[in-house]
Amino acid sequence: MRSSGDYFGKLRAASAKRDSLLCIGLDPEPRVIGAGVEMALECCRRVIDRTSDIACCYKPNAAFWEQYGPKGWEALATVRGLVPSDVPVLLDCKRADVPNTMAAYAAAVFDAMHFDAATIHAYHGVDSVSVFAEYTARGVYVVCHTSNPGRADLQHLRCGEQPLFMEVADLAMRCDKNGNVGVVMGATAPREVTLVRQRFQNQPFLLPGLGRQGGDVESTVRAAFNGDPASCLIAVAGAIMYAEDPRAAAASWRDRIRAAAEAEPKRA
Amino acid sequence: MRSSGDYFGKLRAASAKRDSLLCIGLDPEPRVIGAGVEMALECCRRVIDRTSDIACCYKPNAAFWEQYGPKGWEALATVRGLVPSDVPVLLDCKRADVPNTMAAYAAAVFDAMHFDAATIHAYHGVDSVSVFAEYTARGVYVVCHTSNPGRADLQHLRCGEQPLFMEVADLAMRCDKNGNVGVVMGATAPREVTLVRQRFQNQPFLLPGLGRQGGDVESTVRAAFNGDPASCLIAVAGAIMYAEDPRAAAASWRDRIRAAAEAEPKRA
Repeated sequence: MRSSGDYFGKLRAASAKRDSLLCIGLDPEPRVIGAGVEMALECCRRVIDRTSDIACCYKPNAAFWEQYGPKGWEALATVRGLVPSDVPVLLDCKRADVPNTMAAYAAAVFDAMHFDAATIHAYHGVDSVSVFAEYTARGVYVVCHTSNPGRADLQHLRCGEQPLFMEVADLAMRCDKNGNVGVVMGATAPREVTLVRQRFQNQPFLLPGLGRQGGDVESTVRAAFNGDPASCLIAVAGAIMYAEDPRAAAASWRDRIRAAAEAEPKRA
Repeated sequence: MRSSGDYFGKLRAASAKRDSLLCIGLDPEPRVIGAGVEMALECCRRVIDRTSDIACCYKPNAAFWEQYGPKGWEALATVRGLVPSDVPVLLDCKRADVPNTMAAYAAAVFDAMHFDAATIHAYHGVDSVSVFAEYTARGVYVVCHTSNPGRADLQHLRCGEQPLFMEVADLAMRCDKNGNVGVVMGATAPREVTLVRQRFQNQPFLLPGLGRQGGDVESTVRAAFNGDPASCLIAVAGAIMYAEDPRAAAASWRDRIRAAAEAEPKRA
């Protein structure tokens, strides 16, 4: 268990207060909500207003804000400020570069934009991942196994005894000197979630891919949840953002996830 | 050879006009140039003004602009507009996500910000890389082998008969339906550059890692250059940006690279 002064502490407190493992993705799509960054902001303001006593985390995806150009990053900063201070905000940006460039990305995400956590890739190796992990009060999720069909192309390649995504999980855990590193595990592949959970019983998972991508709540929670609320942070975006009633949709997801977690024996 | 209406055509024309394989990286570091995005803009304006008849491409790295927060993206748009229209501008952003998110990243880089080309990662597989490659008038460089020591952690893992970075090169080439996909090969590892060049004799390489990262001009050019100017785009950032006389520094790099290329037998 991590201490409460950091991202994972904040996440656990928010989760306990709301009895929720639900992370709401904030990914505005102009073709759904209409053109213009103002529509994106308005949509997210409405979602946050109506769900911040249900969600234990918000996760804007940088891509969906960058598509608006420079105004998108302004709006992203605004959105970050709309979330109540006791709920962590995670930037899903999947950055990856050499160490000195990663230092600039970390300065952007943590210092300039004040996010509590971020997603990154491990392809550059330990020296690059460690740059983010050294922000001990922030959280880092390393992309391990993803929710799209193309994941098999590289992530399932056999590297000696095991597939590449297990090598990535191993690498992420080697970088976890400060107890602030988790992994991203796509919720459309519970078998792979189970494999990583078997090896790393206490590691926090971020699980996108439910809702429109088709992942199944029960099998995802069964594969990931270990009794610790941070072990199984389930991200849902469009299915809540674009619901006629985002509050009702969020409550329904929260309840389904909670029921699945309560059905699991506590392992942590 | 690619047609001239696209990124690689524009790159070849700029290269021919300037007799240059030099790409100048625009990566402002506050600890070198002083705090504030205005310093970054001023520094890059000076570099572009003095080198645009020497460089055949400019390559801002997104991280170094994002560290300024929302104003950084505004400045990045300004910088993009400072480059003469016959010189392509490549955003080094190394994006990677599931296909629908990659579509938003591509809209950001190509539609909103008007860059001619971008760097991306392949970890999500063919379906994600293809989203960028479908912009047939733009260029895409897939990160294959990097210049930092940590590259060995994953990139050198054996996947059956070959290391992971060769699998990534294979994947990138499988996505190249439109003749607009190249690879990023760190210039600190000429042996690996040679391996990829032997398999893909005509593919464009982007080669960062010279200058302060310690790569060697002659061995890099020998490994990468095949007679086509797009085969060997050599990126140098800090060693030109922070030179007392950026013009003299750029000319010196251009000349050393050219001399090395002229010493190579034409293979293309």
